[in-house]
Amino acid sequence: MSTYSIGIDIGGTNTDIGIVRDDGAIVRRDNLPTDRYDTAETYMEAIAGQIQRMLDATHLTTVQGIGIGAPNGNHQTVRIEANTANLRIKTPIPLGDFLTEQFGVPVRLDNDANAAAVGEMVYGGARGMKHFIMLTLGTGVGSGIVVEGRLLHGSHGMAGELGHAIVSPDGRACSCGRNGCLETYASARGICQNYREALRKVQPTANEPEGLTCRFVGESALRGDPVAMEAYDTTARWLGLALANAVAFSEPEAIFLMGGPTRAGEALMRPLRKYFEDNLLFLYKGKVQVLLSQLPQNDAAILGAAALGTAW
Amino acid sequence: MSTYSIGIDIGGTNTDIGIVRDDGAIVRRDNLPTDRYDTAETYMEAIAGQIQRMLDATHLTTVQGIGIGAPNGNHQTVRIEANTANLRIKTPIPLGDFLTEQFGVPVRLDNDANAAAVGEMVYGGARGMKHFIMLTLGTGVGSGIVVEGRLLHGSHGMAGELGHAIVSPDGRACSCGRNGCLETYASARGICQNYREALRKVQPTANEPEGLTCRFVGESALRGDPVAMEAYDTTARWLGLALANAVAFSEPEAIFLMGGPTRAGEALMRPLRKYFEDNLLFLYKGKVQVLLSQLPQNDAAILGAAALGTAW
Repeated sequence: MSTYSIGIDIGGTNTDIGIVRDDGAIVRRDNLPTDRYDTAETYMEAIAGQIQRMLDATHLTTVQGIGIGAPNGNHQTVRIEANTANLRIKTPIPLGDFLTEQFGVPVRLDNDANAAAVGEMVYGGARGMKHFIMLTLGTGVGSGIVVEGRLLHGSHGMAGELGHAIVSPDGRACSCGRNGCLETYASARGICQNYREALRKVQPTANEPEGLTCRFVGESALRGDPVAMEAYDTTARWLGLALANAVAFSEPEAIFLMGGPTRAGEALMRPLRKYFEDNLLFLYKGKVQVLLSQLPQNDAAILGAAALGTAW
Repeated sequence: MSTYSIGIDIGGTNTDIGIVRDDGAIVRRDNLPTDRYDTAETYMEAIAGQIQRMLDATHLTTVQGIGIGAPNGNHQTVRIEANTANLRIKTPIPLGDFLTEQFGVPVRLDNDANAAAVGEMVYGGARGMKHFIMLTLGTGVGSGIVVEGRLLHGSHGMAGELGHAIVSPDGRACSCGRNGCLETYASARGICQNYREALRKVQPTANEPEGLTCRFVGESALRGDPVAMEAYDTTARWLGLALANAVAFSEPEAIFLMGGPTRAGEALMRPLRKYFEDNLLFLYKGKVQVLLSQLPQNDAAILGAAALGTAW
């Protein structure tokens, strides 16, 4: 018989909720407007009410567990910590305790990159793997590191910030205040910057492209546009170095990538595999795969959250 | 009542054996000439005979376990793999199975950097820590990474090669065939190279110092010699960057250093702490200690091996 878990993906604008079957099918999904709630209490009650309606509609009396993916999600306190830049509610949100009490099932909560890693392990391409790394490319670059089949949380739950590994000590200024973090070359913004620099090389007098987006660069690269391909080549070069260094740390079986910038597919992956292998220590050459996430992009966040709610 | 374990530190020239009490005191130590044995069998029998004589001399009838630290030590097969560059015996040495059969106690074997990490956790400054990193500076730079109180071995037992993290993509040539590995700046040889380069800056026509050793550079730095201090400053700069990146990976409580080049003490540690903090992501600033190993340098290898033999 199938088992089910509930995944809650919390963003500043939307809270997506899904009921997920053990084969990864989302049997029901709905959402709430995160930014309409002023207090943790009204927000948590709205989530609980929505979950109850979804359970009723699917005639499920219980689930294996509930998982929550959230920026600043603290897996130890099972709550969303205060002062997250992108949430309207400014107090801690003790969603773990609240939902445990409401539904009487285990509730696990973690940051979105860690949820993505567990999603890949439970429903995606990392099934059966004990050692792998998930990199989430987007506005920033996040990471979830799995060691011996468990998330690597570190001494205070803040391990796995590979987006802020410094790959080029004299490189681009990063929003974190330092220079040359991987994120400055591999985030959506970094890829746009790569594009601008590549464009300037071939058309020194060109105007800045208006409203440049990473999606545009990715689609252009897929069509074979040389400037966009060079932008992705630059990303691949720094990413290849950072991933090779990550291998020297935890020797994973595979490294997965997900997020908007990976829509460029082979325009990213072809140069990335080359730079990665070039940068690997001989011990590891040919032994570590670099792969795209095998979860559907639009479902990945809910699946990651739901995976946290399973007995993974 | 005290418990005891046996530590065996295997090098190309010497095999050091110690009986270690649970407080870290080496109650008996002896050694065998590794390079006098032609076959795995005669070598293993010599070790077993030596252990038996040491047990008899100390009137111990049993020990908690036996631990072995060895280059190319494979913790999964519990043997020393074949083709190690620095051993005369060229076949695998199945020391784990052999000693288990001889003495009827658990035998654990690992590479020397991993043994050093466990030594620090059982007898040294990492007692009680669940997340830390040990860096061993010497001819090369090795590392042992502890996560959740266990060694991070990776998918094939080859995790933790932080000496080969690339810190400067266009940097010095490394013996591994790549460029800019941490080892090229922080090994004994790297420190000598730093010294030569620093000397050339102040005395462009100076002759290459004859028979330059890392020990000389360290002692000169401790005396305040500016060229030697600059050599250590260069090491500290790259080491500080590499260690800050390692923190973004596993968020340890502390990072320990041991090995010959650390004899320079504060000449290394003062600039290292500064560069390390400068390079840390804000999340981690002020939260991670960089420390010298608290094990006596001459005993560290035996203590590390013996620690593997305890129920750590």
